[in-house]
Amino acid sequence: MNPSSWRTYLVTQASLSGDRSTPEIVRKAIDGGVDAVQLREKDSSARSRYELGHELRELTAEAGVDLIVNDRIDIARAIDADGVHVGQSDLPVAAARNLLGSDAIVGCSASTAAEARKAEAEGADYLGVGAVYGTSSKNVADEKDGVGPERIAAVADAVSIPLVAIGGITADNASRVVTAGAVGVAVISEITAAAEPRAATESLVGAVETPKAVDTGARPE
Amino acid sequence: MNPSSWRTYLVTQASLSGDRSTPEIVRKAIDGGVDAVQLREKDSSARSRYELGHELRELTAEAGVDLIVNDRIDIARAIDADGVHVGQSDLPVAAARNLLGSDAIVGCSASTAAEARKAEAEGADYLGVGAVYGTSSKNVADEKDGVGPERIAAVADAVSIPLVAIGGITADNASRVVTAGAVGVAVISEITAAAEPRAATESLVGAVETPKAVDTGARPE
Repeated sequence: MNPSSWRTYLVTQASLSGDRSTPEIVRKAIDGGVDAVQLREKDSSARSRYELGHELRELTAEAGVDLIVNDRIDIARAIDADGVHVGQSDLPVAAARNLLGSDAIVGCSASTAAEARKAEAEGADYLGVGAVYGTSSKNVADEKDGVGPERIAAVADAVSIPLVAIGGITADNASRVVTAGAVGVAVISEITAAAEPRAATESLVGAVETPKAVDTGARPE
Repeated sequence: MNPSSWRTYLVTQASLSGDRSTPEIVRKAIDGGVDAVQLREKDSSARSRYELGHELRELTAEAGVDLIVNDRIDIARAIDADGVHVGQSDLPVAAARNLLGSDAIVGCSASTAAEARKAEAEGADYLGVGAVYGTSSKNVADEKDGVGPERIAAVADAVSIPLVAIGGITADNASRVVTAGAVGVAVISEITAAAEPRAATESLVGAVETPKAVDTGARPE
């Protein structure tokens, strides 16, 4: 699938899954219509991520869902993932592209228009922009209140690659970031910590699609 | 260089370098005759390791010293290192070999004969065996006193690939592990924390070479 078609993107975090395994959460998210899954699990060993990655590859491949690995290009290759997602302190986008080739998906975290333009110039296929709202699942050191949907609009104006909004996104606020210019939303806790991860995913998909349907008629061509 | 020719192997750790930079320590170790350098720095971001790796690649390539990257196969490829070193919770040796090809050096940490045989079967070129003695630079959870030179002998008997001894090795005890069957010694603090890293490296080289010279005459063929 092309990142420009992503509506919902799940970032895994075992510590928020309660007594459910990560593959169980991912299976429910797939049933709910998730388009992409990112294997993150920064606190796990490379071996654990590699083993979990094989499981997630099987689940996602069957369902035609994209599998992206956070940070580790070697693990992405070893489990035959669709791509990687790098942050500003991971390997540069250009290095990731060089190691993975032109067919792989390379995404990058950007919280400013300048970071976004740099990532696009180095060959990123999509951007994760945020943290939009305050969030408890990731450490948002300097921006506890989030960059807001205005930043999504500013970054969307600055680049031509698709962007997914991340950070404190819920079914209630998802339509705002899509209206601002995100193609979809990336979440950790909204799906992972939900009592019903499948229903939570369906709600997000609905929230992302609604403003898109409205936009199609409302925007001048 | 082939791992079977390694005498001294420096594992980097910036936190033990005092006010000296890691490239500065590496340059002095190279002047003192080190044969291989492992970029470790587990607490640094991938981006920092990548940038430091480029510096170390330049220094080591000029000197004909092998550069090995701990854990991260992607960083090893991105900086054109000679190989990787994986631990028991990193990617498996077989995965590392598959990603790097047959020309790269793949090493593996092993503290038992069983781990050593498995790593050899998966394609490891060398083993790091230890921790031999108690050590403050690595976390040796269950074996605070180290596995001892006897374990070096047991592992050397179990496999045919070369092994370097690691963990609390000094110029004073290096000859014991070489006599026990290690081709060389890997150290962090003995070089990194030394007032004179070059002189510390020279002392280690001397200690490793002395029992080898004695052995040549003494051992029955």
